Amino acid sequence: MKKILIANRGEIAVRIIRTCRKLGIKTVAVYSTTDKEALHVSLADESVCIGPSQAAKSYLNMNQIIAAAEITGADAIHPGYGFLAENAAFASLCQQHDIIFIGPTPDTITKMGDKAEARKTMIAAGVPVIPGSKDVIPTVEDAVAMAESIGVPLVIKAVAGGGGKGMRIVSDLDDVAALYRSARNEAAKAFGDDRVYIEKFIKTARHIEVQVIGDGKGEAVHLYDRDCSIQRNNQKLIEEAPAVIVPQSVRDQMTGSAVAAARDIHYKGAGTLEFLFVEETGDYYFLEMNTRIQVEHTVTELVTGIDIVEAQLDIALFDNFKLKQEEIKIQGFALECRINAEDPAHQFRPSPGKLDALHLAGGPGVRHDTFLYENCTVSPYYDSMIAKIITYDSTRERAIRRMQAVLAETVISGFKTNLDYQFRIIQHPNYISNLVDIKFLEKNQLLEEIR
Amino acid sequence: MKKILIANRGEIAVRIIRTCRKLGIKTVAVYSTTDKEALHVSLADESVCIGPSQAAKSYLNMNQIIAAAEITGADAIHPGYGFLAENAAFASLCQQHDIIFIGPTPDTITKMGDKAEARKTMIAAGVPVIPGSKDVIPTVEDAVAMAESIGVPLVIKAVAGGGGKGMRIVSDLDDVAALYRSARNEAAKAFGDDRVYIEKFIKTARHIEVQVIGDGKGEAVHLYDRDCSIQRNNQKLIEEAPAVIVPQSVRDQMTGSAVAAARDIHYKGAGTLEFLFVEETGDYYFLEMNTRIQVEHTVTELVTGIDIVEAQLDIALFDNFKLKQEEIKIQGFALECRINAEDPAHQFRPSPGKLDALHLAGGPGVRHDTFLYENCTVSPYYDSMIAKIITYDSTRERAIRRMQAVLAETVISGFKTNLDYQFRIIQHPNYISNLVDIKFLEKNQLLEEIR
Repeated sequence: MKKILIANRGEIAVRIIRTCRKLGIKTVAVYSTTDKEALHVSLADESVCIGPSQAAKSYLNMNQIIAAAEITGADAIHPGYGFLAENAAFASLCQQHDIIFIGPTPDTITKMGDKAEARKTMIAAGVPVIPGSKDVIPTVEDAVAMAESIGVPLVIKAVAGGGGKGMRIVSDLDDVAALYRSARNEAAKAFGDDRVYIEKFIKTARHIEVQVIGDGKGEAVHLYDRDCSIQRNNQKLIEEAPAVIVPQSVRDQMTGSAVAAARDIHYKGAGTLEFLFVEETGDYYFLEMNTRIQVEHTVTELVTGIDIVEAQLDIALFDNFKLKQEEIKIQGFALECRINAEDPAHQFRPSPGKLDALHLAGGPGVRHDTFLYENCTVSPYYDSMIAKIITYDSTRERAIRRMQAVLAETVISGFKTNLDYQFRIIQHPNYISNLVDIKFLEKNQLLEEIR
Repeated sequence: MKKILIANRGEIAVRIIRTCRKLGIKTVAVYSTTDKEALHVSLADESVCIGPSQAAKSYLNMNQIIAAAEITGADAIHPGYGFLAENAAFASLCQQHDIIFIGPTPDTITKMGDKAEARKTMIAAGVPVIPGSKDVIPTVEDAVAMAESIGVPLVIKAVAGGGGKGMRIVSDLDDVAALYRSARNEAAKAFGDDRVYIEKFIKTARHIEVQVIGDGKGEAVHLYDRDCSIQRNNQKLIEEAPAVIVPQSVRDQMTGSAVAAARDIHYKGAGTLEFLFVEETGDYYFLEMNTRIQVEHTVTELVTGIDIVEAQLDIALFDNFKLKQEEIKIQGFALECRINAEDPAHQFRPSPGKLDALHLAGGPGVRHDTFLYENCTVSPYYDSMIAKIITYDSTRERAIRRMQAVLAETVISGFKTNLDYQFRIIQHPNYISNLVDIKFLEKNQLLEEIR
């Protein structure tokens, strides 16, 4: 009988434990002092306190976690997401202690964690990246050459940039030289650093991502795509599967190139390739690869019927890669609303506290992933996400209507949450019509102001 | 905008309201005085008190319910299951008041409610019924003739029978005459009534049923089968979909004959044909048809992705029959455990009371249908079922393991429940190996005694 330690907390720790319990795998929870009564601790077979509340002293304390694994005789460590999930040093440390790290190799984590390296790897695998580069463009001739190779619109950006200073959008190739010079001048004045680079200008886009799972030996499959365009300050708030806005021909290319990349790097376990997708042109560009399970894996599970944590465990613990691309089918549509303990009326500042009342809607087509239970306390020390509410139905329209009904029924009280804010988003006509992009919430400040 | 009144309470009222909210249909709850604070009342758009706690004075009070529908301007009444769901007089009363009854016609309800009539209808539609009849066999010659026509084993039963008195199992045709006489003699002594009838003897069987949905005009589809063999005193406790024990060739026949019957009688809405299935021979026999939504419709929803309440509303309110047989596919496996407020240690007597703590497991592959909420009270006046816990996964084995994990996590306290008893059943090796029949719990008294 296998035993794994979960180096995480909150809903993802609970999520992982649930699949372990289903599979008959023993679990070890680790917890900080503030999490002593947390749900993941009570659900695990064993638990070990690994330090005080501050994450740096507990959930990020590698040696303490390794010690907990050794003391309890755990065969493997599941890092969840966040904390040490994309920490190559931690993955190495596990190896050194003969503990299986449930995720890709330290080498893969390092490679994908370095943006330039990841970009190079993707180019080699034939995955489209944003044309241009982060390399400094030293001369006006280089600027013209680069502009000609990537075409307009493009953007000249100050390396030291920010607030639009030293930034120029070029929509006519004839203007490149002049705008290059003025960008450098402005950057010099603003930052004392006149270095600039040139990239394709992407005015508006969707955040589309592809879930991949690899066996670490060159075989990999994709579990189709997700649309995570609804973001606030680059934080995803609503995620959907599949990404219905993506035409089938583009989906084929995108998922195909994602799988090609995963195979190329002998990717092991579950990972996600994130893309910017431009609806008007059908172009998509690699952003980054996340070498871990993601918060939003749930929506993919609902539409494919695949338990992604189970797949991770199959690969890491049993070297058993069961997934076959031709057997992976999409059925229906799912969306997830992230519920955060935060106060939308005050710049969404965190709002921890003691749970006063909890009612989650049941019935068909709804899934909850949460660490909340009656009378529990939400700690101020960690991420403010307290629950993921996921609905499923045959179409996007129906799944959204189901979400409206579910959120209307949900009660979480004792502290402020973004439940009402989420309700407002999913009732917005543009959201319902799927006329959104990654700037949607920014452009609809009203959504926040009314709160 | 349509408005419907739900002439029911508990989880099924909540279940129906949830789909109405998804569809934008307004709802009216009715409630007895004891249910004033029930979940279905708080979720509905409007609510009307229809009388005191006793069901006869409230949920069975037809005139009061019709009045509530008229006062609130409801277009239709959904009867749920139980109470007035299979009451032809109530369906007629709705018609007389120009209120749509969400279900089949009064005529269909009457026909299927009469066992002899239902049997005749099924024979006409080509559905197999248990050979023999409930008709009295007046002479020994009639007994021999009947025995020859249905074959052995057969059973001679006293019309007034009970406790095995006046009952004879015949396994050799030569014994028919002698056993017929001795059965009549025994029946005469035991009951003062020597009338007997003869039926095919079915020693052991599964309870298999087929979900059908019809448009009321002769078109109908089936949503495959369910296995509901786990019963205690003829009360279903665990239901599964699909019925994996049924060979595909038999499933094809069974579902085919169910659809044929539904078409034959121009069945309207959702209904279920119940069968006894004999594993050894592959024979199946019609038992009865339930002309309403069933408790266990949930497992069918999970494996087909079809919202059965939505289909009922589509047909009844909008005359919109969207289902196409070729598009209805089974994916995965689901089982449902009925959780009752009852005391297994004391002959499963009802155990109402105030809910003290409630924790339902979330995560992948679990669904809850319940009217429980924090601090609610379970009334002694109604059925003891308080929750349905449903798990879903790719196979029966996995879905059972998931159920084990889910039940282990579940907390319902404040009164006694059969949660532990259910946990014991789903851990029984014979249940796990699917070696069960309708007598399984009877034969495994141990399951009860240990509680």
